[in-house]
Amino acid sequence: MPQSFFARHQDLLAAAVHAVDSRGAWSAFSDNIKTYGDGAIDTGREAFEAYRDAQFYLDQPGVVGRGGGEESPWGLSLNVSYPKCSPDALLAAGKAAMTSWIKAGPDSRAGLCAEMLARLNAMSAEMAQAVMHTTGQSFTLAFQYGGPLAQERGLEAVALAWREMKHVPYRAVWERPQGMAGRTRIDKRFTVLPRGVALVVGSSTLPNWCAYPGLFASLVTGNAVIVKPSPSAILPLAITVAVIRTTLKEAGFDPNLVSLLVDTAAAPVTKDIALRPDVRIIDFSGSPDFGRWLEDSARQAVVFTEKRAIDCVVIEATADYAGLLKGLALTLCLNSGQFVATPRALLVAREGVHTPQGVVGSDRFGHDLAAAISQLLEDPVRAVEVLGAIQSAQTIEGLDRLAAQTDALRESSVLHDPDWPDARIRSPLLLRTALGEMIRDVAEHFGPVYWIVETATTSESLAIAERLAREYGGINLSVHSANEQLLQLAEDAAWRAGMALSINLTSTPHASQTAAFSDYQATGANPAANACRIDSAFVTTRFYVAQVRRQVA
Amino acid sequence: MPQSFFARHQDLLAAAVHAVDSRGAWSAFSDNIKTYGDGAIDTGREAFEAYRDAQFYLDQPGVVGRGGGEESPWGLSLNVSYPKCSPDALLAAGKAAMTSWIKAGPDSRAGLCAEMLARLNAMSAEMAQAVMHTTGQSFTLAFQYGGPLAQERGLEAVALAWREMKHVPYRAVWERPQGMAGRTRIDKRFTVLPRGVALVVGSSTLPNWCAYPGLFASLVTGNAVIVKPSPSAILPLAITVAVIRTTLKEAGFDPNLVSLLVDTAAAPVTKDIALRPDVRIIDFSGSPDFGRWLEDSARQAVVFTEKRAIDCVVIEATADYAGLLKGLALTLCLNSGQFVATPRALLVAREGVHTPQGVVGSDRFGHDLAAAISQLLEDPVRAVEVLGAIQSAQTIEGLDRLAAQTDALRESSVLHDPDWPDARIRSPLLLRTALGEMIRDVAEHFGPVYWIVETATTSESLAIAERLAREYGGINLSVHSANEQLLQLAEDAAWRAGMALSINLTSTPHASQTAAFSDYQATGANPAANACRIDSAFVTTRFYVAQVRRQVA
Repeated sequence: MPQSFFARHQDLLAAAVHAVDSRGAWSAFSDNIKTYGDGAIDTGREAFEAYRDAQFYLDQPGVVGRGGGEESPWGLSLNVSYPKCSPDALLAAGKAAMTSWIKAGPDSRAGLCAEMLARLNAMSAEMAQAVMHTTGQSFTLAFQYGGPLAQERGLEAVALAWREMKHVPYRAVWERPQGMAGRTRIDKRFTVLPRGVALVVGSSTLPNWCAYPGLFASLVTGNAVIVKPSPSAILPLAITVAVIRTTLKEAGFDPNLVSLLVDTAAAPVTKDIALRPDVRIIDFSGSPDFGRWLEDSARQAVVFTEKRAIDCVVIEATADYAGLLKGLALTLCLNSGQFVATPRALLVAREGVHTPQGVVGSDRFGHDLAAAISQLLEDPVRAVEVLGAIQSAQTIEGLDRLAAQTDALRESSVLHDPDWPDARIRSPLLLRTALGEMIRDVAEHFGPVYWIVETATTSESLAIAERLAREYGGINLSVHSANEQLLQLAEDAAWRAGMALSINLTSTPHASQTAAFSDYQATGANPAANACRIDSAFVTTRFYVAQVRRQVA
Repeated sequence: MPQSFFARHQDLLAAAVHAVDSRGAWSAFSDNIKTYGDGAIDTGREAFEAYRDAQFYLDQPGVVGRGGGEESPWGLSLNVSYPKCSPDALLAAGKAAMTSWIKAGPDSRAGLCAEMLARLNAMSAEMAQAVMHTTGQSFTLAFQYGGPLAQERGLEAVALAWREMKHVPYRAVWERPQGMAGRTRIDKRFTVLPRGVALVVGSSTLPNWCAYPGLFASLVTGNAVIVKPSPSAILPLAITVAVIRTTLKEAGFDPNLVSLLVDTAAAPVTKDIALRPDVRIIDFSGSPDFGRWLEDSARQAVVFTEKRAIDCVVIEATADYAGLLKGLALTLCLNSGQFVATPRALLVAREGVHTPQGVVGSDRFGHDLAAAISQLLEDPVRAVEVLGAIQSAQTIEGLDRLAAQTDALRESSVLHDPDWPDARIRSPLLLRTALGEMIRDVAEHFGPVYWIVETATTSESLAIAERLAREYGGINLSVHSANEQLLQLAEDAAWRAGMALSINLTSTPHASQTAAFSDYQATGANPAANACRIDSAFVTTRFYVAQVRRQVA
């Protein structure tokens, strides 16, 4: 039975491995909902409706009650409850479930993980609703980032781990002449062994997209996984865990290999379970403070953290000023800046931006960008589609605080969606401040607030970008320039700070996004993340190799 | 120039990658000195003689004086001094040297590392003398473990890292339809970036064999390396560093990529340099206490430690009792037990050992093993060749202390070698004690002392082996049995404790040794080591991938 899933998905796995080894454009799953069948959106909505005002079913051990309490940033009442389980029961069940999972071997495990992802893919429209109503993303983004793009990240992790596990042969015969005694022949068997139980701590803004790489990398390498979602975004990961458990059960494995651990903001459990000796791997996406605490405290585990980035755009020159503004406006508006690599600061030197139409000073650039944003958001339906809702009320509070104390280039306004009268929708706040103010404030805010800063020179802009990345974290440095010498300086700065460098990228959202199978997300070389998602080290550190040597006559 | 070294060694690298992926018997370098030319031994001795009573030359920066003071366990006066350099100067020079090394790329770096190893190989007879007179190994062992076997470990690390780096393409074109705007085309370049400066802390008993994996894994992935030898075994690594620096210089690279940092037991520098922010990788082989200190304290670095193993042999039955005794005797005598995976405890159940000649009780087994050891050591020339000298005076003190307080099955005796009248040569001490005494004493001793313990059942023996591995560290569990059910229990215990399992291995020294390109040394799953030497994770954690994306029209 498990073998047949491998047979079914072997070509997909091989294609995914080829894709990560060549890193061109490749998709495993369509990101266009129209290709999911005529009634997909309606069917998905109906499936989602069934979760509302209901008890989410999971046949997990150690149930001690029920919890939940997510609130939709769109204002929809959810009222979903989940079984609350004792961490001890989940840990014990996970440990017990690993033995047969280990023995299944890399092919069977990779095949079954691919099957789980294919099943999740078929449910992408339903998942889109769950992601939309926990994160505030628009339906389209929620579909993409909760569905196919997240599934591709999972598949990428499975493919990379499968490639690495396949480097370990199942069997070898070691034979050498041995003194005058003839030959020595030793039969060797090698087994990929998991580290133990893995803990995945979910993100509030991109629950699936952030969780799937670690979840599937750990699972495919033989580990049991406990998924602890953010209390504000449980449903997407609950559905994920339910699908995985059903698939495991069907294939004859213990479903307790993967379980859901639910908590609330008032009574969090992560600090407790993260330090258990049995937890040997932790994947975390979230706040810098908690990420650092995990890195410092969970010494018994391999800890992968993804925290915060203060990414910059350095604008020196462009051959397409209108395209640059349009691309930037979309980048800053998309998902209200609630992606980790949405740029926060736009740096323009005193001498301005060189364009085919002449030099544009930082002041005019700011006004032009504000106008481009306003133009993008002119159509209210499109505005809501691009912006989505704001996931956290704290983000709104920060926005209002900043707006009150600063003169804005562009004020943040409240938008209304007739379908969602209680939704938290805000247009971006665009500030033009001195360097010092930006540096003082930028790390304290998340979401739709951006700083335009005039610097002395473009070299200073690069130095600022490097400093912010080293101090607070950086994923991508975006530079607009045709000066190859300057671009070399930018590449040197990006190398030193461990960021990717994007040159003249106006097509959105490439500058702030990473493409599965092609881009590496973060490096691990600055505080943005302590490891890359996803490279070889992200998967190879999750397993051991056990060997048995037996002398043969 | 660098490219030509890659061309020269490309076939060797490809063969090494094939070997690690198939894990049969493969050798890159002959371990038989006779194949190194007629005068090899004499030439090597002459080269070694030139170091004695002399100043070892290294053109390193920041020289603040000279140091050294190694003493030969064979009693030969060495009197070699080395330049003492300031850690700051070596760190700064290493950092500056990396830029051109990064740009050379994986092929050039792997080719040049292979060239370094080939040059070291040609000097193996000279190296043998240096290893012999710092570690106490016999000439033959010193030749093998300081020469070809160490070089193969280095080549294995280079091959694995090269394989992993080659998974990262140099360039990719990412192209997709983009809305109605036509196609988006993004040119992507990927560069393997080092973590930073790597520190290799050398071992006193196997300086090259322990240091080469980390040294070459870090170097080939682009890192600068500072080699800090044990104060008692500097010369082998000084010669190594000198060869590497000359090769780098010839190929047009900055020799300060690899430097030697010398200290003394009285004024150690490791704790100081290990905590510098610029040190980003540490490879350590040595005492458990210091290894744990590094793991706990050097939080800015990826730390690989190799510490101590208390390995056991569980003897239930054998089809070849004489062969078993002969193999065990050699395993315990070889290098006076100064290998990390030499077994420390021999566990026999109350019901004895089943042999074709009948059942042998633990008492008789002990006497038979003592007799087998005595027989092996009967010929004094052969005895010295097998045992070598004892590296550390502390080992002798521990041996004498134990001998004084316990009734031995076989006393440790002082052996004399007419060529080396001042050598520290001791035959093994074989004890038969209760379980509690063994557990109390075993972790405190290193070198030629072994415990025979009678257990209630073979299952108890396995439990003891598992417990010792979990508590103190274990690399290999050796079991002699034909009972497949028992062997399955043994495999389960080995899996749980993260040890290799060796079944019925009588050909020595396989049970206590690992073969390059075939065996994995340790797992990282118990205190013996926090990582395997050498697997994918051992190399992939040493580099980042930087990417540059540029939009093309």
